[in-house]
Amino acid sequence: MALIVQKYGGTSVGNPERIRNVARRVLETQREGNQVVVVVSAMSGVTDNLIKLSKEVSREPNEREMDVLLATGEQTTIALTAMAINDMGGKGASLTGAQAGISTDGVHTKARIANITPDAVHKLLDDGHVVIIAGFQGQTADGNITTLGRGGSDLTAIAMAAAIKADLCQIFTDVDGVYTCDPRVVKTATKIPELSYDEMLEMASSGSKVMQSRSVEFAKKFGVRFEVRNSMNNNPGTIVKEETPGMESVVVRGVSLERNQAKVTIDDVPDRPGVSAAIFGAIAKANIMIDMIVQNVSFDGLTDISFTLSGADLPKAEAALKEVISTLGEGVELRVQSGIAKCSVVGIGMRSHSGVAAKMFKALADASINIIMISTSEIKVAVIVEESEIEAASRAVHTAFGLDATA
Amino acid sequence: MALIVQKYGGTSVGNPERIRNVARRVLETQREGNQVVVVVSAMSGVTDNLIKLSKEVSREPNEREMDVLLATGEQTTIALTAMAINDMGGKGASLTGAQAGISTDGVHTKARIANITPDAVHKLLDDGHVVIIAGFQGQTADGNITTLGRGGSDLTAIAMAAAIKADLCQIFTDVDGVYTCDPRVVKTATKIPELSYDEMLEMASSGSKVMQSRSVEFAKKFGVRFEVRNSMNNNPGTIVKEETPGMESVVVRGVSLERNQAKVTIDDVPDRPGVSAAIFGAIAKANIMIDMIVQNVSFDGLTDISFTLSGADLPKAEAALKEVISTLGEGVELRVQSGIAKCSVVGIGMRSHSGVAAKMFKALADASINIIMISTSEIKVAVIVEESEIEAASRAVHTAFGLDATA
Repeated sequence: MALIVQKYGGTSVGNPERIRNVARRVLETQREGNQVVVVVSAMSGVTDNLIKLSKEVSREPNEREMDVLLATGEQTTIALTAMAINDMGGKGASLTGAQAGISTDGVHTKARIANITPDAVHKLLDDGHVVIIAGFQGQTADGNITTLGRGGSDLTAIAMAAAIKADLCQIFTDVDGVYTCDPRVVKTATKIPELSYDEMLEMASSGSKVMQSRSVEFAKKFGVRFEVRNSMNNNPGTIVKEETPGMESVVVRGVSLERNQAKVTIDDVPDRPGVSAAIFGAIAKANIMIDMIVQNVSFDGLTDISFTLSGADLPKAEAALKEVISTLGEGVELRVQSGIAKCSVVGIGMRSHSGVAAKMFKALADASINIIMISTSEIKVAVIVEESEIEAASRAVHTAFGLDATA
Repeated sequence: MALIVQKYGGTSVGNPERIRNVARRVLETQREGNQVVVVVSAMSGVTDNLIKLSKEVSREPNEREMDVLLATGEQTTIALTAMAINDMGGKGASLTGAQAGISTDGVHTKARIANITPDAVHKLLDDGHVVIIAGFQGQTADGNITTLGRGGSDLTAIAMAAAIKADLCQIFTDVDGVYTCDPRVVKTATKIPELSYDEMLEMASSGSKVMQSRSVEFAKKFGVRFEVRNSMNNNPGTIVKEETPGMESVVVRGVSLERNQAKVTIDDVPDRPGVSAAIFGAIAKANIMIDMIVQNVSFDGLTDISFTLSGADLPKAEAALKEVISTLGEGVELRVQSGIAKCSVVGIGMRSHSGVAAKMFKALADASINIIMISTSEIKVAVIVEESEIEAASRAVHTAFGLDATA
């Protein structure tokens, strides 16, 4: 008998019929001789409606109360899911995050899980119940309702799997797993059977939006092996787990693309200590996430600094930098470029294989695609190209590394 | 400085604008130098939608899960109300029933309050907050969410007022208070400035649907003085409190009417022990509430039994009685009459004034209205008349007892 945690996202529980579908899957898993804990998100659209409602009563909704409000979304789903399970002759019992023993810190709307005391979960499991837990939410030590922020339900599932020492954690979503590239862009992309936490992290941070990085980081930290799979079919998914020696034989696991990027360049900056700190301090203060940073070699005591960020954050970044620029002396100039995109190749095999970057650049050159910026990590090579060329770039790289499906 | 509990029903918080209106009223009350605890219902329509959703996932929704589901309705309102208060510069903090320390028994969907531990409420009040509590809900000793059934939010308000020893409990609704009769029927009806718990109870059980009896009973038991008033204006409402000597000077406080009643008569029943028990046992088993019961004097060892009930329950009652009738011997016959209604006069002054029934019957006779059945209690006289005559009957009685407004 295995102990399995299954997580179903907002689309998978998006209407009563789909909730009944989830109930059926869960009961099937239980009938196969397993104990099952289910983590569910709010039905798709519900959270957005609640946020809309909050804006209709207040200009800047209080964050403590936002958590009280948003927590109702998952609470609705757990009750409906448990009802469906009971209606089908099963035994289902729901628990809110607080009832499931999920304790968090007090940072409302983006709390971190502090610890989990899963006594109620074990009690219900021992009693033969399927336990349905509200994802995305917890409670502080002094009893305030909190939510975990984006990707919170995945985090609940993985943290709960760690706390109850589950044998398997299945993240059900609306795709079959993690692909070598976005199948809408690269028709020959294939599902990756298994990959390491680090590869999954790089894929996530490079635009493959299957899961948020924090959930993968948590899984890595606690060694929770999980599977990403489709709630609408029975296909095996992608297993994400500790790195194994065999994994290194594949040099590039996948190709990620991220659209709508922008580049900011500050020209002729005096090359002296504190300048970078001033620039990136202003960006951080404006709560803007930046991605690549490139600084050119100094010439005549002046240098150029470039960085990339999401296109949506560009106006905010320009505003934040205006003041800093004026303090850096005359001649310092701000240039921005939007309409660019990022293409990354990811794989732990890169560590032991040389020539990955060269091979990638050659594939792009052969396709006549100009590289605007380059950034590398131990297991990733990323390039910035014109947004109009991102699909061609991804296809060229995907083919070059032998990732295309063999028909 | 007074400590005031204010309860706002579903219509009063029915949309974002009305929630802001409630927030304004609450802050006004606080600014006048009071500490304020607010109890709110689900926004009107929300509970019905949740029930509809539950029926879409299951034929007979599990009651434990129904409570988890329905509790989200009030949780949504408390968050939105607290947000609105904070948006207006006030300090508002919400508490679910569980967080507010409301402990109940484990009878899901109609739990009873066992006790209240209002530590969190006091802490927030001491800290200058308006405390917004979810009505209608609580939690069992072992942490399950429960709801209190119909009229539950009123009950929360009154029980909380008792627990925190509030100086005043205001039940805000969409009418100005309790009237001498339904103003839609009797145009000359007037608002009653104050009445006793017992009068309020008789009014409630006689069809004046301002509040459920159980909340009034709770208030009586714990001596919670409360005021029923309108959330849309600033008119003083109706105070409901302990009986005072002066109250007896008014013989009849008000006239209640209840439509859509039905009468069941069982003719030629053997007049022997156990017969009534068999009949009313079958009715109770079918979960039907009955109102008046009349048994005629026995003649030749046979008697007639009549009782009234809601017209909606008539088919269920007929079905329940069919089997019992067949066991009572030949000649026993079931007759039913629908399309009747009840008119009651209520007042604690009746105890010390004779002739109330006679005066009522004369008023009806003068209006040529036939009385079908009569029932009395210490502070009430009720008659059943044809439904088509109920309005004329109410007006005649209202005038006879001098309740008409003097223009």
